[in-house]
Amino acid sequence: MARRERKINRQQRSAGLAQRPFAKVRNPYPYMEILSSDQIEAIHAASLKVLRDTGMNFLLPEAVEILRAAGADVDPDGVRVRFDPAFVEEKIRTVPSRFELHARNPAHNVTVGDDWTVFMLMGSAPNATDIDSGRRTGNFADYLNFIRLGQSINICHTIGGYPVEPVDLPVTTRHLDAIGAMIRLSDKVLYGYALGTERMADAIELARIARGIDHETLLSEPSVMTVVNTNSPLQLDRPMLQGMIEMARHNQPVILTPFTLAGAMAPITIAGALVQQNAEALAGMVFSQVVNPGAPIIYGSFTSNVDMKSGAPAFGTPEFARSLLASGQLARRYGVPWRGSNVNASNAADEQATYESMMSIWPCMLAHCNMVKHSFGWLEGGLAVSYEKVILDAEMLQMMAAFFEPIETDADSLAIEAIDQVGPGNHFFQSPHTMSRYESAFYSPILSDWQNFENWQDAGSVEATQRANRIWKSLLETYEEPPIDPAILAEVDAFIARRKEEGGAPPL
Amino acid sequence: MARRERKINRQQRSAGLAQRPFAKVRNPYPYMEILSSDQIEAIHAASLKVLRDTGMNFLLPEAVEILRAAGADVDPDGVRVRFDPAFVEEKIRTVPSRFELHARNPAHNVTVGDDWTVFMLMGSAPNATDIDSGRRTGNFADYLNFIRLGQSINICHTIGGYPVEPVDLPVTTRHLDAIGAMIRLSDKVLYGYALGTERMADAIELARIARGIDHETLLSEPSVMTVVNTNSPLQLDRPMLQGMIEMARHNQPVILTPFTLAGAMAPITIAGALVQQNAEALAGMVFSQVVNPGAPIIYGSFTSNVDMKSGAPAFGTPEFARSLLASGQLARRYGVPWRGSNVNASNAADEQATYESMMSIWPCMLAHCNMVKHSFGWLEGGLAVSYEKVILDAEMLQMMAAFFEPIETDADSLAIEAIDQVGPGNHFFQSPHTMSRYESAFYSPILSDWQNFENWQDAGSVEATQRANRIWKSLLETYEEPPIDPAILAEVDAFIARRKEEGGAPPL
Repeated sequence: MARRERKINRQQRSAGLAQRPFAKVRNPYPYMEILSSDQIEAIHAASLKVLRDTGMNFLLPEAVEILRAAGADVDPDGVRVRFDPAFVEEKIRTVPSRFELHARNPAHNVTVGDDWTVFMLMGSAPNATDIDSGRRTGNFADYLNFIRLGQSINICHTIGGYPVEPVDLPVTTRHLDAIGAMIRLSDKVLYGYALGTERMADAIELARIARGIDHETLLSEPSVMTVVNTNSPLQLDRPMLQGMIEMARHNQPVILTPFTLAGAMAPITIAGALVQQNAEALAGMVFSQVVNPGAPIIYGSFTSNVDMKSGAPAFGTPEFARSLLASGQLARRYGVPWRGSNVNASNAADEQATYESMMSIWPCMLAHCNMVKHSFGWLEGGLAVSYEKVILDAEMLQMMAAFFEPIETDADSLAIEAIDQVGPGNHFFQSPHTMSRYESAFYSPILSDWQNFENWQDAGSVEATQRANRIWKSLLETYEEPPIDPAILAEVDAFIARRKEEGGAPPL
Repeated sequence: MARRERKINRQQRSAGLAQRPFAKVRNPYPYMEILSSDQIEAIHAASLKVLRDTGMNFLLPEAVEILRAAGADVDPDGVRVRFDPAFVEEKIRTVPSRFELHARNPAHNVTVGDDWTVFMLMGSAPNATDIDSGRRTGNFADYLNFIRLGQSINICHTIGGYPVEPVDLPVTTRHLDAIGAMIRLSDKVLYGYALGTERMADAIELARIARGIDHETLLSEPSVMTVVNTNSPLQLDRPMLQGMIEMARHNQPVILTPFTLAGAMAPITIAGALVQQNAEALAGMVFSQVVNPGAPIIYGSFTSNVDMKSGAPAFGTPEFARSLLASGQLARRYGVPWRGSNVNASNAADEQATYESMMSIWPCMLAHCNMVKHSFGWLEGGLAVSYEKVILDAEMLQMMAAFFEPIETDADSLAIEAIDQVGPGNHFFQSPHTMSRYESAFYSPILSDWQNFENWQDAGSVEATQRANRIWKSLLETYEEPPIDPAILAEVDAFIARRKEEGGAPPL
């Protein structure tokens, strides 16, 4: 057995759960389009007008100089940059429509773009929660557990940032310990933060070492990703721009996500929020391509609305659902991959969290979202990551993967003879057609309980979130670290030790 | 103020909940199609073959005679009927593609067909449940409460049968008391059961009296509906056929629903189960049109799968989702309205109930389902109706109605000037564009709690199903009977009294 196959088998076994195997997910169905092409063009044209007349603030002088040199129009304040529509249209032409993201285990590589969908672990929660111990501030112990869960769950394709912020680690070296742990505990695609040049450079270098490749190979094989959020409206800050430059120069993918909450950081109309989202995304794409034409960049969409009573962000709303579908159409207009999210505003891993998530997942799927960030664990508008919600999400997303298996209509599937053999008023339980297929005919759930009421009651009336609690504990109990070449691990550790000695990265 | 307007206002006020007003729901988006037209034709052709070669059992001699007289081929056993494909294609041509269903309050009429969607209250649960008192056998007190809830919830368009079976009422007169209560407690579209000629005839006559119309008007204005389930595979029983004849002769709509659980009463393949569903639905449509060409009939789809471990039916599965989408395509091929369901297999109104429901609701919406049966309250594969689930469903379906509001892209919605006025790095909270729109800009939930975690915790950490518990109680507390003409009510009561004196309807 080849080393790679052994690795995969070990990984599957260690999951301790009768789940579907790790597999890329591809949507074979048509796109759902809720806007006409005229409406898409109207949003496109409006966002070009915004970039031409209002422009966007770039808070890093180096970035402004890069844009000025490329031909953009810079204000006397040295911050505001305005873009000619033709300049925008020309620069974004080099954004790749599809690329491969490489994991240290090649069986866990993913494809980003076209009809492929990547489900990413939750990122950046300040708090962790579970139904036994409740909510606590982010810490490294919870961080490690969530990485282990992300590794154990096959439908979780990649890491998606720090699932929870390990605030008990010092700020200057936190990224070193956090990425070091990602590498050790998971062999899926890595994630680094665009918080200044040093942190981003360290993440890129660690990704290179973890994969055991040289710098030249890294330049042609994206191996780590990051998210760059705009400070909406129309602003990109200094550390984010530094991160973007570092990633683009190394040909590593940036998910450029405008933070366009309608009624707060964006206009209160969905169309207006989309115009602003599109303007910011286009500006980010232009910047990335000016730094390095052809560098992978993903159109990020996060347009939702705030609760106008409290100002709190709401997610998984009808507005969010429509924004996702429109965002997919906009990204396809430019032929670039796009990112959505599986999000909700519930304070518990309850029914609200579930239906708001479904109001996020379905539109993501229908619009062929390429990267679904926060696929596992998100609660509270992003302020917490929940152990139980990770499992609820795993069930929902496994179901979507099964939903994407097209209905077969060959002669045996149409079953005309089987129907005739059974005949009116009988049943199919014992028919040869059933017996030859029953073991793998249907989706097999990991969380859903299909016992009848009496058996369910006799077994303690355990509801879904309580069952999820048992499942994540069992996953952690049976978890095994994925194999890694000891020489590589030693190089990772040595790099981290050296960078710590150097003082890590400056606080922001 | 006209009497009708007063009625509506009183009804809205009595709801005791800041909900959307009663309104027909129309899907403005394109259909989702997961099968190619070749695949649809393959299923169509296969089902015609089944009807020609295997045929279908009709267990009522009167029905067999009707079909024989129309030209169908009857077996010497007098039960099995075989249909020539050309005969099927010719007969189903008269099925109406759209019709209006009339309520005793005309403001609560609904349109069935095209892109209209009707959300129906749960029907036929043997048990009722709530989180305070748990599960109990169906009874008239719970029956009345669920009818009251269906009346109070604006997104609930029609009654959908007995929400729970009132088994404490005698079997011979149960239908009289049950429909009498529907008429008194609700002014939405009525439902009767196809359990023999007498019960169906009583339901039709009560619907006529409740609307205060004559027989001739009833014949042109469908006012009560029923479901006819096949005894799959390929069989229609005596009481159902009697009900069908009665409904068709009075031009009242029948929802013809094959009970095709893949692996049990239908082939284990989705395509095979769809072939059988389609054959049974076509046979039902043919029969209805032979009895009365042009009588409204709805293509029912209920194809799901069983859990192959236990034989228990599963709902809201990936297989169910794909079957719904395929069923929509099949119904559109024939140009007939179609029925789906909001169903799940969970034993509690928990997260599983919620995500399995969403795996039912979304495909129904995407395939432009015309009648969503069991929209409110279904649990346990149909064995229980839940008070809390009614409210969970109301929130989910209200969100779908809001999702169907198209994104506006007029100049003011695109907000180019608002974006320019606010400018980079600021916020939109106080902008005139926001202030002029904030009151009605976004969907306002009835159940979702968007408070921040601290406030939610201070308020007792109440989760969604517990909040749903408070809401249904408040709806019942504030419930008021909708107004009814005392002369009509007297006629209803007199009819019921007379039919009880006559002994009601025979037990089945």
